Order: sequence, then C-alpha cells, then structure tokens
Amino acid sequence: MFNAVISLCEKHGFLKKIKLEQLKVGPTGCLLMQNLKNEWFHNTVTNKDISVFLSDNNDFRETLEFAKNMCLDRLPFGIAEIINTKSSAQEFLDYYTEKAKDNIDFQNLFGNDRVTLKCTIFTAPSESIPFFHQWQRHRRIWWRKFSPNPGIYSLSDIKTDNNNIQSVQIMANYPWGSQLIESLALYPKPKGIIDHKFKFGKKSLSPHTVVSNIDMSSMFINTLCDAYAEPEYKDTKRTLLRFHRKLAPYSISFSIASGLPAGVSTELNDLALYLTRQLRTKHVSTLFLPSSSKLSLDAQWRQYDELGIPYGVLLNEKTLKDGLVLLRSRDTTLKEQVHVTDLVSYVEQLFKNY
Amino acid sequence: MFNAVISLCEKHGFLKKIKLEQLKVGPTGCLLMQNLKNEWFHNTVTNKDISVFLSDNNDFRETLEFAKNMCLDRLPFGIAEIINTKSSAQEFLDYYTEKAKDNIDFQNLFGNDRVTLKCTIFTAPSESIPFFHQWQRHRRIWWRKFSPNPGIYSLSDIKTDNNNIQSVQIMANYPWGSQLIESLALYPKPKGIIDHKFKFGKKSLSPHTVVSNIDMSSMFINTLCDAYAEPEYKDTKRTLLRFHRKLAPYSISFSIASGLPAGVSTELNDLALYLTRQLRTKHVSTLFLPSSSKLSLDAQWRQYDELGIPYGVLLNEKTLKDGLVLLRSRDTTLKEQVHVTDLVSYVEQLFKNY
Repeated sequence: MFNAVISLCEKHGFLKKIKLEQLKVGPTGCLLMQNLKNEWFHNTVTNKDISVFLSDNNDFRETLEFAKNMCLDRLPFGIAEIINTKSSAQEFLDYYTEKAKDNIDFQNLFGNDRVTLKCTIFTAPSESIPFFHQWQRHRRIWWRKFSPNPGIYSLSDIKTDNNNIQSVQIMANYPWGSQLIESLALYPKPKGIIDHKFKFGKKSLSPHTVVSNIDMSSMFINTLCDAYAEPEYKDTKRTLLRFHRKLAPYSISFSIASGLPAGVSTELNDLALYLTRQLRTKHVSTLFLPSSSKLSLDAQWRQYDELGIPYGVLLNEKTLKDGLVLLRSRDTTLKEQVHVTDLVSYVEQLFKNY
Repeated sequence: MFNAVISLCEKHGFLKKIKLEQLKVGPTGCLLMQNLKNEWFHNTVTNKDISVFLSDNNDFRETLEFAKNMCLDRLPFGIAEIINTKSSAQEFLDYYTEKAKDNIDFQNLFGNDRVTLKCTIFTAPSESIPFFHQWQRHRRIWWRKFSPNPGIYSLSDIKTDNNNIQSVQIMANYPWGSQLIESLALYPKPKGIIDHKFKFGKKSLSPHTVVSNIDMSSMFINTLCDAYAEPEYKDTKRTLLRFHRKLAPYSISFSIASGLPAGVSTELNDLALYLTRQLRTKHVSTLFLPSSSKLSLDAQWRQYDELGIPYGVLLNEKTLKDGLVLLRSRDTTLKEQVHVTDLVSYVEQLFKNY
C-alpha cells in the first residue's frame, strides 16, 4: 500500500523519486509543506497559553536570552525552532529523538537535508509533570484533528532513562507498522540551562523543560499516507487523498461541463475565471486549469480527487440561465447547488473552521 | 538615521549585530520574516489570474515540466521559487538582478546565506509587453500597500540590453539614498526554455518570460527602515515602528493598569489571559507579558510602540465593574472603549482587510 501512495503522489507532483529509496518534494508537495508548517506555527507559536518565541537559525541560546528578558525571567515561556540540519549534524537530534522501530524510515526518505520543528517549554519544576501530561494529550488531539483516520494516532508508554528524562512518542499505526511522528520529552535537568535562574511566583529556581520534536519529512509523508484512501465507488475503486481542508494544497477546483457550444463554453470560462479571482483574493487556494473545459468531467473529478481537493465547482449550460453552480464534495461525491453570488462567502464559511 | 533603526531593532529582537556590518535575524524578526513570506505567497502564488506553481528546492526544470503538464502546455502560467543560496552561488542571481547603486548594501547585511523570492511568468510573445507593464504597476502597488510612506516607492526607467532583455527596478527612496527592493525583467528568449513549445490559442510557440526577484534580507531590512518613525509627542519624540497590520510581528498587546490592589490585579490578569487565549485561537498574534502588570503604563506603551504592535488593550479597575477595556492605537495613541465580549470580533474585523 505504501508503494501505491508513493506512485499516486508522484503522479500529482507531491513528490518525485530521484533514486532508489530517495524522494524529493514536488510542486504540489511544496504547497502541502507550507500548510503543514503554517498549522504547526498557529498551534505552537501563536495558539498557546504560554508566550512562545521563534528562532529559525539555530540560535537557541540568544533566543533564550531575549525571551528571558521579555518575560522578566518569569516562567513559563517557550521557544519554537525551525532547525535545518544535514544528516552529519544528526548527533544533537538523536539526543532528543529516540528512534522508534519503523517499518519504513520516514525520516530518511528525503535524504540528508532535514528540517526539524522543535518546541521547548520552560516550566517551573512543580508544574512540569502535569504540564507534560497535558501536552501529550494536546499534541495527540492536534494530530487527530487533521486526520481522516484519527484512530491511528496513539501515545507510546512513558520511558524514564538513567538521567531521569521522561520521553514519549506519538505514533501513527499503519497496516505495515507504526511510524514515529512526534517525540516529547521532559528534562528535569536541561543541559546548558541548569545554571540560568528563573522566577516563579516569589521563588528563584532552575526550570524543567518539555520538548517536542517533529521531523518535517515524516510529517509530510505521514500526511500523504494518512490521507490515501480507495473507497468502493460504482463497482470500482476510487482513489483519493482525503486531506483535511486546512492542509489540502488546493482548496477548490473549477470544472466546465464538456460538449457545450463554443460561445457558451467561453462565457462559462470567463465566469470561472472571475470566481477564481474572487476566491484567490480571499486567499483561497484555487485550481483552475485549461483542462477544465477540455477533459471529460470524469477525468477531471479523478484528477482533483487524487490531488485531494476538498471541493469542486461545476459550471454548466444552466449556470448562464439561473446562476446556479454545483459544488461537489470530494469525500461524498455529492453535489449541492449554490448561486454564483453566494459562492465566495459560502466557500469561506466551509474553510473557516477546523 | 539608518543606525537609529538598527539599534532600535536590535533592542527589540528584530536583529542582532554579530560583527561589524553583519547582522542576524532575531526572534521578533523571525515573526516579521514569516509575515513577509506569507504576504508574498498570497500575492504571488495564490492571488493571481494565472496559475502559479511553487518550487522551493531549486528544481525549476522539474517544476516547469509539471506545470506544463498540468496546463496542457497552454500559456500563461507561472513558477514561484524560494531559492536558498550561498554568496558563492551568486553568479546566477547576478544574471537577473542588476545591482543598483545603493548607499547601504541591504543584500549583504546578513552575510552569505541568501533567500531569494523569485517568480517567473510564461506568457505568449504577443501578450508579454502589456503584461510586463501591468505587472510593474501591480508590484509597485503591492509595496505601497504595506507601507506607511507609500511615496518612497518608485519604478526606475526601463533599460534594454544587447540581448533585448528589458529590466526595471522598484526602488525605495530614503534620506540616505535609494535602495533596490525588487527587480523585474522581460526575457524574449529565456535561456534553456527557448526550445520548449507551448500552446496559445491555436498556435504553438516559444514563450517570453517575465521574472521578478526579491531578496528576502532586503525586503526585511526595508520593512524596518520604512516603518521607523519619530513623531513629536508631548514635546518629546516618540519612537515607533509603523508596520502594516498584516506584517506586524505582534498584532495586539495586553496591559494592566499599575498600582491596583493585589486581588484586582490578579483578576484582571486572569481576564487578560482569557482574552489572549481567545484571540490566539483566532490566530491573532498576541503579546501578553508578565511585565504587563509590573511596569508603568508609559514604559509598556513605549515598548509596544517600538515593537510596532498596532493595537494595545488596557484593562483597569473599571473593567471589572462595567466590562469595558480600552483599545489603544499605536499610530494615533487614542484609546476607544470596547466591551470585553465584543473585543475578539472587533479585533478580527480590524485585521481582516488590507
């Protein structure tokens, strides 16, 4: 099944095989990456009870100084990092990420260049254990929220090593085995930070840290594997990528019914172009291809389902008379009628919530 | 004045001097970078009449193949790239960006690692010149849109070189001289693409390309210089960064009036924390620091103005009685009353539009 995912994704520009067992992100994949990073950013940097400061060029120490200053040395606060490494600089990552027994090596599918999304929260020792537990739940919920198969995400047992470091992994369970997608750890004596003094209430103390590590490539390939589905459809299989609407590289597609007189086709094309512009102005990622009036509808739906586009707009001859378009859902294949004047606000509503 | 900008920005974590004449992006700067990249993405990749495909690992050729396929070889379409280079690989950039005579070398302030945001549009030869002109206007408008001093942006004259390549620069004019911030060019015989055949209407032809290049560091430092202002305020100078609300690293801050009884202060703190959570859930970047109830209001406003935060919420003793908070504007220093229950939706409205 993993191979089926890879070949589907290669066909649609999510990724590209460059040599045996080595992949590269394609143009559609870049858009997915972007959305994944954005959601991580919203969850980790913006959306927290805790102030989190961002560092994206390996200067943890300076960011810590700055954060400490901004917070008047008071706990808790956090530092989020986007870390670029070559495999050779892998040692310091191994310090944090204990390797799980994967059937497929998600991390190394994309070669040496590695991006790690890391977040370190500095907490008071008295609060670190409840916070660590709360964060585990919170992170697992996050993965489930974006998944069409929330049941596959589970937490491993907590392991405690000789240095009293507690660690736990979030795993995605596939037919071929479990894949590590995030590792969390609680450091009671964080290296290099132990001599910094922080304030908590009226006390002065050394903090504990709770650290999360996500390997970008693993997150990317996991999103593809998780989204892949082959439901039965009209006695045959329909292959699709069931991305969450916040992650899908394209939110909506446009199709024009085929076999129409040239004049009608041109008018519908202009209307579709107009609607595309309106949607893009609202930052809705819209796919409108020249093929939308050249290929059969079946071929178009197949392409858009395989690209994982949650909704498709169909314009047909009737649209010019009554102003109604059909909005097709990728997951149900059902179509509902929407008036062109309502389309933009309706689509905005559809994509607003999680 | 440039030095005043740099020292203000260093103070607030936008950047850091690492050695003479060399800078590094700080934690607050990372947030600004993120917002700049996002706006470029929305404008270039999402918000266009033309389908633009994204490539962020130097594989222009493969992305071109994919884009050509997706568009059934039909013009126009575009490719956006996020290019990471070391200065040593500078040759191929120089090919595109003709260096303007800057007073300050924006591009090299951040050392060797360079990120270029590039967009290449493939057009039919018959449409390339009007498109090139339209794009110049469009891009200049884009820069002006985010600027508190839109007048400083201007287009240079169009130059045509021996190979018939037309180029034009968007410049920002400062008291110390003009700075290059974007270069645009029209290539009638784009290198390496000339033998690809494309379709336009019923014709088969070689395309022209229109290319835009933005150096990320220049865009970043330009945003800081453009935002810097020292208006007169109560017989003295008030220093602030007047970021556009879509670019500001933090959208809103919270302050609690000082000198209140401990119990009141705690209650207001809880209320501020609650509102912060609500705003962050809506992805509004909110700054709520421990200093908000420890420093004097004047000191807090100074800090938030210098960080370029467009709005600040002030909670005081009255808030607990009538539910009203004060919303202070960075630019006018005026405060308006808002009820706590309306705050989130009101702030969303404030940040919705450009």
